[in-house]
Amino acid sequence: MAEETLAALRSLMASHFPPLDALVVPSEDYHQSEYVSARDARREFVSGFTGSAGLALITANEALLWTDGRYFLQAEQQLSNQWKLMRMGEDPVVDIWMADNLPSDAAIGVDPWCISVDTAQKWEHALAKKRQKLIQTTTNLVDEVWASRPPHEANPVVVHPLEFAGRSAEDKLKELREKLVQEKTRAIILTALDEVAWLYNIRGSDVSYNPVVHAFAIVTSAAAFFYVDKRKVSSEVSSYLEKNGIEVRDYGEVSSDAALLASDQLTSAHSAKETANVISKAGSDNSAEKSSNDLIWVDPGTCCFALYSKLNLDKVFLRSSPLALAKALKNPVEIEGLKNAHIRDGAAVVQYLVWLDKQMQVIYGASGYFMESETNRKDQLRTAKLTEVSVSDKLEEFRASKEHFRGLSFPTISSVGPNGAIIHYSPEAETCAELDPNSMYLFDSGAQYLDGTTDITRTVHFGNPTSHEKACYTAVLKGHIDLGNARFPNGTTGHILDVLARVPLWKNGLDYRHGTGHGIGSYLNVHEGPHQISFRPAARNVPLQPTMTVTDEPGYYEDGNFGIRLENVLIIKEADTKFNFGDKGYLAFEHITWAPYQRKLMDLSLLVPEEIQWLNNYHSRCREILAPYLNASELEWLKKATEPIVG
Amino acid sequence: MAEETLAALRSLMASHFPPLDALVVPSEDYHQSEYVSARDARREFVSGFTGSAGLALITANEALLWTDGRYFLQAEQQLSNQWKLMRMGEDPVVDIWMADNLPSDAAIGVDPWCISVDTAQKWEHALAKKRQKLIQTTTNLVDEVWASRPPHEANPVVVHPLEFAGRSAEDKLKELREKLVQEKTRAIILTALDEVAWLYNIRGSDVSYNPVVHAFAIVTSAAAFFYVDKRKVSSEVSSYLEKNGIEVRDYGEVSSDAALLASDQLTSAHSAKETANVISKAGSDNSAEKSSNDLIWVDPGTCCFALYSKLNLDKVFLRSSPLALAKALKNPVEIEGLKNAHIRDGAAVVQYLVWLDKQMQVIYGASGYFMESETNRKDQLRTAKLTEVSVSDKLEEFRASKEHFRGLSFPTISSVGPNGAIIHYSPEAETCAELDPNSMYLFDSGAQYLDGTTDITRTVHFGNPTSHEKACYTAVLKGHIDLGNARFPNGTTGHILDVLARVPLWKNGLDYRHGTGHGIGSYLNVHEGPHQISFRPAARNVPLQPTMTVTDEPGYYEDGNFGIRLENVLIIKEADTKFNFGDKGYLAFEHITWAPYQRKLMDLSLLVPEEIQWLNNYHSRCREILAPYLNASELEWLKKATEPIVG
Repeated sequence: MAEETLAALRSLMASHFPPLDALVVPSEDYHQSEYVSARDARREFVSGFTGSAGLALITANEALLWTDGRYFLQAEQQLSNQWKLMRMGEDPVVDIWMADNLPSDAAIGVDPWCISVDTAQKWEHALAKKRQKLIQTTTNLVDEVWASRPPHEANPVVVHPLEFAGRSAEDKLKELREKLVQEKTRAIILTALDEVAWLYNIRGSDVSYNPVVHAFAIVTSAAAFFYVDKRKVSSEVSSYLEKNGIEVRDYGEVSSDAALLASDQLTSAHSAKETANVISKAGSDNSAEKSSNDLIWVDPGTCCFALYSKLNLDKVFLRSSPLALAKALKNPVEIEGLKNAHIRDGAAVVQYLVWLDKQMQVIYGASGYFMESETNRKDQLRTAKLTEVSVSDKLEEFRASKEHFRGLSFPTISSVGPNGAIIHYSPEAETCAELDPNSMYLFDSGAQYLDGTTDITRTVHFGNPTSHEKACYTAVLKGHIDLGNARFPNGTTGHILDVLARVPLWKNGLDYRHGTGHGIGSYLNVHEGPHQISFRPAARNVPLQPTMTVTDEPGYYEDGNFGIRLENVLIIKEADTKFNFGDKGYLAFEHITWAPYQRKLMDLSLLVPEEIQWLNNYHSRCREILAPYLNASELEWLKKATEPIVG
Repeated sequence: MAEETLAALRSLMASHFPPLDALVVPSEDYHQSEYVSARDARREFVSGFTGSAGLALITANEALLWTDGRYFLQAEQQLSNQWKLMRMGEDPVVDIWMADNLPSDAAIGVDPWCISVDTAQKWEHALAKKRQKLIQTTTNLVDEVWASRPPHEANPVVVHPLEFAGRSAEDKLKELREKLVQEKTRAIILTALDEVAWLYNIRGSDVSYNPVVHAFAIVTSAAAFFYVDKRKVSSEVSSYLEKNGIEVRDYGEVSSDAALLASDQLTSAHSAKETANVISKAGSDNSAEKSSNDLIWVDPGTCCFALYSKLNLDKVFLRSSPLALAKALKNPVEIEGLKNAHIRDGAAVVQYLVWLDKQMQVIYGASGYFMESETNRKDQLRTAKLTEVSVSDKLEEFRASKEHFRGLSFPTISSVGPNGAIIHYSPEAETCAELDPNSMYLFDSGAQYLDGTTDITRTVHFGNPTSHEKACYTAVLKGHIDLGNARFPNGTTGHILDVLARVPLWKNGLDYRHGTGHGIGSYLNVHEGPHQISFRPAARNVPLQPTMTVTDEPGYYEDGNFGIRLENVLIIKEADTKFNFGDKGYLAFEHITWAPYQRKLMDLSLLVPEEIQWLNNYHSRCREILAPYLNASELEWLKKATEPIVG
């Protein structure tokens, strides 16, 4: 099938006007989403590679797929021999590859709805050297050859109530309009799904794992538009939106409305008078300013090239969206919600570990979570079989029993032994591995709760870990603790702190090929910016700030053997340092994830007293915090798992 | 006097054509040197501020001085009330200040020999917004009002022999010419004094502390020119240069020669045939390439705007000089020399500490380096007085007694108590403080030896340090050890590692306002790039590489109280890590500085076992390595100072 798809695409490329020397198929949908709906999984459809990040390029003779270090192993396994894997960080990036390998004057097609302004401009610059051109196709060529493409989803839009959102849409719109005035802009086009959802306090289920709605927004000083498939909007939601001065328009209308906005002809059904009040409340004496505020704000990282191209380019203000930071700074209600969601989630993880520990002993004769001894594989007892998928279903069951559960926040990574080395491994029921009492088991999972999104990774062993596995686990654990224990002055970026999680690994010549932390949403996307903790300097170097969430997830992956990762979610808060040099104010992290680290996998001789003390404090709080959510035998297990460690 | 200088400059600014709204007086000489000769200390002359880094701006009504965090306290003390201190990192940078505060169309004068291409271009960009112009003055206005300006120095050029340089000038020229071919350039203009000295294996004494000669170089595929005051070149040196194919021209000729080079009319007295051989040895089949190699290589960070302006700007290749990295990668002879120089230097430092310890006890009744108890100030014994300057003279004496000593590598920082908080404090004999047995004493010093340049800082206390002083000392020590103990993959920059030295301070809300490490020359400048260890990302992010030198010098400075800094020189080497994840190769540091850390200032409860073990190993090696250079009583003292610490 893959071969036919390539042939069909090549035929469309040849008959295109102008004929295309290459076709780019990015992972992203019209909203530059990291996770896309089945209908938008065009790159997966053409290449067979199912990872969340990647880019396909098809030429007359070649088919190439770029992806990053998290997915090298997975892509090698999933790509057919017609495809060539291009390793990001090792091989040339796509624009340089095109400039070097495609002929002069080559025409390279791309659907302008699926590529950001930043990317398109960067590529155009690289391609200009050989007069190669980026051609915006008027239709998506992949869609044309995709006979079995899933239909449009029609999931309802729901209102995210104030008791979880913490701030009204009206309040958020007011603040956004103040930003528009500050930057002398008269409107902003919002394309990121989580930004639209956050701003209007609405949620949906158009994309698996992300409670968002396929929608755009345009906000002017006088109006707020919500572009969405109207079938998804109930009369109740409709009246909520109207009350907040938000006008619903059809999804497809955003294109013509962007053009109207450019010529200042975009008018709202709502009265101009009412909205004018909003502005005069927001900014002071802005009547004089208003005439000079003729720019339209576009985030070049998230806005697609198609919408951008509708605007008068002299009047575009290219700057990352103010909502990225506003959304990342959690309000007190969101913080409370995130903490509560993580407690319930931690209880589910502990219940899962208790269950799994017992199953491993009963079915496989494992020595278990606590005991370190050779496993006796008592095959006679094997009345059942545990697989990566069957156990992760059980984990989902425990989560689903918790209050406010709405689904998982990403496909659970449940991986035994060598599969753990595939950083974003996603087991399939038919092909996945069986649990193995003699192997490391890594699970990285999270859920969507109405009051918060969770993301946690633990790595465990139910048999007799080798001293090498212990040394590696302990190095990862040290990095995880040392980063989480850091204090740092205001203004420090995650890029500066990233090394703290790597130093214990580097001491042994070990490392991991992914970033160390990402922001996490409040019942929104599990990955959100604008900050991060990464060895790569971010394009927008946003410092870590109080009330932001960020994960702390170093790892180590040994191809063919095992993978280790430990991940907690942290909230950034002011630190109670003894001094305050430079009057900068110092910050610290607060862990909000609760689940034990396995004592059996630690080489205590490698831990320093401060690390052991941290572990003991953390474990003691785990016990306290999770106790109300566990039954007697679960609590017994947790008590044992969190016994103080004597270093 | 300062007032008269400002008045005279303002009068010249007014009568200039066009009249100048502002005059910039940078710290740098024609070579963008960090340290300048007395004759070139124009910024110091106009402002009275003696720090090594700073920039003065004079307008009709204002006089402003920008400097960085190392010098805030010193500048506050030295600037008269006619001057305003602009704090880098806190106040707007100079180009933004000019754009914001000077009128539209303002004319801003600068001597184009004293400003780099990078800086000039950055400023022109900022000034363009209000049509302000950077005016290249044809004379230096400061020189015109500087009646007592020191005369031209006429110090001899000396040849740096191969036994110390390790590589011949011929060999270095060959490699440089290979680089020229690689980058399709036909010539390079070298303006940095240490690069010229390194390339031609010559040294001088035109600038205090830096064994360099005021000189430029132009190297083409066929010739090598050395622009220098010919009176400095003896017939012996002259024949050395001639043998290496280097033609001596007058210093001032570089300007017209740059213009000739631009029009490809710069010819050498040497035969073209001979030099053509050099090329064909260097690159292969470059005859075809030669015609396309029509660019001239200019380092925009070090080349002055004046020389750059002589060139055909379409044919300039702006890239940092290849000599910066070539010079930073030490050859085996240089490494051996640096290690030996640091051993002799360490012996001098220990001898100084032994002497100082005794003096402090005898003169001030201090309890001494080892004993922690209240000092009895026995005033009756005060037959002599120790001052910051008198003791640093003694330190110089110890160094001067060592083989290959050629002078200090920078003005010794010898600072008692609150003076230690002035990061680049430079005591003056008349005004400096007296040693105080109840205060911290910080000394940061180094020397030039024929086989290497040194730089070391230790902080000591001869009385009863407070627990706060100990806590701060220990935090600095931890950062110093933790950075020095790091291992890291190839490709890692010093910017990434900088945080390791800060984390122990940040834990307490402490920090320091300077970078953590700089490269150091081989009998050359004490500060050299292109790498560094700094919280600021470098313009050129050169990774740390094997054979580079770098200092490890965190600190903590408490205004009005004390300063702490600990500094060793490290050499980067391949690490013997157990694994080699990603086949990147891992690196580590080797300390080459030898002098004890004071046990009395450590709060052992804050050190982890790995740190204590490192201290014990280091101290034991100190003892072994320095023993041959010490007499019996000095060795006795060192044995006591390096006794194993039990954590």
